[in-house]
Order: sequence, then C-alpha cells, then structure tokens
Amino acid sequence: MEISTPYLLFLGDSDDPLSIKTSRGIADWRPEICVGQLSMPGCSVSLNLPEVSFEEAAKKGAKTFILGLANRGGVISPEWISYIKKALESGMDIASGLHKKVADIKEIQQLADRLGRKIFDVRHPTADPQIGNGKKRRGKRILAVGTDCSVGKMYTTLALEQEMQQQGLNVDFCATGQTGILIKGRGISVDAVISDFISGAVEALAPENTDDHWDIIEGQGSLFHPSYAGVSLGLLHGAQADILILCHEIGREHMRGLPHMKLPNMTSCIEANISAARLTNPDVVLGGISVNSSALTIREANEWCNSIGHKYGVPCVDPLRHGMKNIADYILAEEGCRHEGSATFRRA
Amino acid sequence: MEISTPYLLFLGDSDDPLSIKTSRGIADWRPEICVGQLSMPGCSVSLNLPEVSFEEAAKKGAKTFILGLANRGGVISPEWISYIKKALESGMDIASGLHKKVADIKEIQQLADRLGRKIFDVRHPTADPQIGNGKKRRGKRILAVGTDCSVGKMYTTLALEQEMQQQGLNVDFCATGQTGILIKGRGISVDAVISDFISGAVEALAPENTDDHWDIIEGQGSLFHPSYAGVSLGLLHGAQADILILCHEIGREHMRGLPHMKLPNMTSCIEANISAARLTNPDVVLGGISVNSSALTIREANEWCNSIGHKYGVPCVDPLRHGMKNIADYILAEEGCRHEGSATFRRA
Repeated sequence: MEISTPYLLFLGDSDDPLSIKTSRGIADWRPEICVGQLSMPGCSVSLNLPEVSFEEAAKKGAKTFILGLANRGGVISPEWISYIKKALESGMDIASGLHKKVADIKEIQQLADRLGRKIFDVRHPTADPQIGNGKKRRGKRILAVGTDCSVGKMYTTLALEQEMQQQGLNVDFCATGQTGILIKGRGISVDAVISDFISGAVEALAPENTDDHWDIIEGQGSLFHPSYAGVSLGLLHGAQADILILCHEIGREHMRGLPHMKLPNMTSCIEANISAARLTNPDVVLGGISVNSSALTIREANEWCNSIGHKYGVPCVDPLRHGMKNIADYILAEEGCRHEGSATFRRA
Repeated sequence: MEISTPYLLFLGDSDDPLSIKTSRGIADWRPEICVGQLSMPGCSVSLNLPEVSFEEAAKKGAKTFILGLANRGGVISPEWISYIKKALESGMDIASGLHKKVADIKEIQQLADRLGRKIFDVRHPTADPQIGNGKKRRGKRILAVGTDCSVGKMYTTLALEQEMQQQGLNVDFCATGQTGILIKGRGISVDAVISDFISGAVEALAPENTDDHWDIIEGQGSLFHPSYAGVSLGLLHGAQADILILCHEIGREHMRGLPHMKLPNMTSCIEANISAARLTNPDVVLGGISVNSSALTIREANEWCNSIGHKYGVPCVDPLRHGMKNIADYILAEEGCRHEGSATFRRA
C-alpha cells in the first residue's frame, strides 16, 4: 500500500471541528502534499487550505481524494457518494479513514475498477497476515507508549521524525493508525488486525534495515487500558524497540472512555512497558517523556517537565511547547554510549 | 452460537493421529455426546468410537457433523465435500474447526440454506464485536495462563470444571479455542477476534453471573510468547479473574515454534500475570500450578510438584496423574477465607 500524493481533502458537510480531525492532522503535518480542501454546501468548518473544485484540484495534480472525516458510526453518508465518484472521474484514487469501507459501495468500486483507480480503506488491513517471530532485526527502533489512549503518541513520533530528519538522520515514521497512515501514505491500522497477528503486523511495518536507520513507530493505546492493552502489548513486542518514549496528558483524570478506571502512575507505567519490551529487545531503555501540558501555564509546564525529567533521568518535554530536540539529543547520546560501550567491550 | 448435540465425528482420510486432535479432544472429554465416528476409505486413524454410516448416525439422533480435523493450511479437501453434503441431507448441522470456512463453499452453503441447517465455522467469530470496559462483574472467574502455548490450558480448565462439578458447584467451562468450543458447544476463538475487541470478547464470554457461579476460562498463549502475547493480555483483562492457574510443560526447551526464545522462569511468569490481571481485578491470586509432567517418571513428577508447590505456596499437580482435587480444594478454601475476611471486616 502506498497512497499517491498530493491530496485533495474532502470536508463533506461537516459542522463539527472534531469530525475533520484526521484531515486536520494531514494539513498540519504535510501541508506540502495538500492541494486544497473541498466542501459541500452547508459545511461550516475549514482547514484554512484553498477551497478548490475537482477541476482545479486535478489541474494542481491531485492524485488522491481523502475522506479524513468522522461521523456517527464511521459510515459513508449517501450525500458523499456523488463527490467520491466525481473524484474518481477527475483522475483521483480514494483514501478513507472511516470505519465503513468505501470499497463496499458497489457503484463506487465498479467505477474505480472501470477507471483503473485505487480505493484505500486505511482502517482495514489488506496485507497478508503474518505471525510474529520476535527475531532480532537490524536497524534501530523507537516506539511511543502511553499512560492512556489519545495522549499524543502520533504527535510525538511525527515531531521526533521531523527533528531527527532536520539533524540529517536516516529516519522513518511508521504509522499504526488511520491519521498517521494518511499522513505517511502507508502503514497499518494495528487495532484492526486479527489478534493472532498483531506483533507480526508490526514486524512487517518496521522490518530489518541498515544499522544507521531509525524507525519511529507510532504507538496505540496503553498497557493499562483494559479495552485495548492487547493491541499495545503486541505492538510493543513486534516493535522490538531500542528506545521507548512515554506519552502522557497532564491532568487526565481517568482512562479514556472509562470514568471508573484511574490512570496508572508513571513509574508503574514505565516499568511495565520496559519489562514487557525486554522480551524481544533486552537492551530497551526509556528515551524520554513527552507530555500534553495544555492544562498548565507555560511556567507551570516548564516546572512540571523539569521535575519529572529529573525524577526519571530522561528529558521530559511538551513537543508543542519545547520541541523534541532534547529527546532526540538524549537518544543519540545514549546510542553513542552504547556503541562506545560495545566497542570497548570488543577491545577488552 | 450453540452447537446442537449429539455429534458425528468425521475423520476424513486422515493418516496422522495429530490431524484428528480436535475430534480426539471431543471424544475424550464428552464421549456421551458422540454417536460415533465416520471415516473415508484410506483413513488409518481412529478415536475408538463405533464406526457408523450417515443413516445409523441419523437414527442415533446425531445433530451435528463435526470436522474436527486438521491438514496443511486448514483447508477443506475437495473429497470431503460430498460427505459434508450427505451430512446436511441426513439432517445434521456442520461444525468445523478448520481455518478455511465451510460456509465459503457455495454449494454447501446453498444446500444448508435450502435445508434450513446451520454451519458453525468455530474459528471465525460471528458475534458483534464489543469494546471491553473493565467494569467489575458479579460471579467468580478462574483463568488458565501459561509459560507458553500448548502447555495444557484446555486440559487443565476442563479437568477443573469436572472436579468442581463433582463437588456440586455451579461452574462453567468457557471455551476460547476451536477444540474447547466444539467440546462445550459454544465459545469464541479469541485469537481470531479483531485486536481492538479481545478483552470485550472475553467480557461477553464470561458475563455477569450469580455470586456463587464460577466461570473457568480456557487460556490462550502466554504473556511471554512474542507472537501471541497480545491475545493473552486481552484475555487476562477481559477475564477479570479472581484466580489464575499457571500451566507449564516440564522440560519444554523453548517457546513453541521459536527455537531462539527461552521459556520465562516461573516466578517472572507468575508475577507478570498477576500484575497485569490486577488492572481489572485487584484481588486476583494464584490458585495453583498445573503441569504436563510426561517427561518425568511418576516419582520424579511427584517430587517436582511437591517442591514447586512448596516454593509458591499453592498446590502443584499434573491433572492427568494427580487430578485437580488439590487445586479445587485450595481455591474453595481461599474463597472461603475471603468471605470470612470480608464478613469480619463488615462486622468490625
């Protein structure tokens, strides 16, 4: 799977900013691959991209029409169908982050077949499932883990990719959820994989690579979320991470969607993740803590991060406020020490 | 899903005793629901059940024709199709533990539809998926966990159900794999569930019940198996077990299928399982250790079990050699103490 760029982002008839969260992720992280947005009458939200027609988008080279929107049940609204068909007729593939599959709508699939266009239902894995084997792969891997769901794992890993790229490193973001997949143009929705194949899917997502290559793997869920921890553990084992980054939202009062479940304390959460990750990479270490500190003032956030960073001996940052340079530098220094260490060891 | 009994067990043209493992499980654990076996010419294995024709089986009241066999790839051999159709025509439903779905063979599905018969592809969950919520449910639950896959979790839980039933307790075996499902007539193949729904599937499998009721939940995989640990963790959270039974095969040299992965030591395995299980049931305790000791003489096995039982402070048995009475008694005493404890607490 490789989704062609640039994109035309479809906003439908949305009137809720949250409903275009996926498209907003694309526009924020990859503005250079967005030729514009296209809205239906009645749409009251915007990504602040140029509003373009199908004709204009095609002229600007748009290759894929993106359904990065959400509605109740993740269904495809009947009003969208003529727009999707128009996109196909204008020369574009379709990529959707909705639960319901666009490819299941017969008239759309038939038209796509006739025109030779592709439909990417990115929540629905298409790769042949494979069983994980836990064998050590070459290359280096970083994985974001969390105290909960929706605590900024995608943001953290994308920001880290950007920082390490700017430092000239050989680095790739590996998407494990629908927004990340649309941003990167490829990836796998790990939570939609059959449970026997979770770790195998992640092994395939971040395969063996050169020694200087870093895969930065988007995390999902939390070992402490009773609905989704199985996904998180399979991801942890399949990732074979050298470095974990713990993500957390300051002030979150309970596990997402479950008012009766408290958040884990940070120490237990770090210990549980490191301990489980050791099964497939005994050398895994914590490389940083990345927080959403929007509940605090900047001064409070700085103090909080300094104190937590001191406590755990790793940089603690809010990527939005502080950037990811501290964490990237720490990881590279840590990696340098390892090499030094192993060289010394070899000489001894 | 509720598979009708009694069963007619189909052996096909098998020539490998391992290929009829699933049917053997049914014949061993529920001989009273098997009217007989039916083989094709060339079949060289047997379950030591009476060999019957479709007519005889129908006369004996057979309600379901069981494809409890395995072959390379779990496919349905073309030679079996006429037998499956004959079973439908003789008044039976079809239940299969194969990977490939019987219902996907058009001529069989059409015949079943016409005759009003059901097809149960038990490896393929049909229930609407639900997200787990981790809310405490009434009733008591026991779960088998393991140092590895295939270390006797199904055997252990079935033997414990039998023992507790004989003691007059209100108890149910909850199947999570295809053999268990065919033995019990219902259940869910947890490893075939979409990964987002693992714990939710187990919550539905062992739902709220009366205070005196015990669900004994068949375990799957191991938290220490890098291919399947996600399944095991989701199962652990969804089960909300009060009691864990650790299963182990003495002498197993590496994780099943992975010569490069050592088995976990028993202490880490117990600690990791108890610690993860506490997320949805803080009162969970270890209730016993159940081993496959076939690598040892009886005397050696007795010594091994005594020593390990002493070390961990719980009964350690080989269910085949020692039965499950010690573990059942320990669990009930433990449960009694809890009630006593809470009564005292309430009185205080």
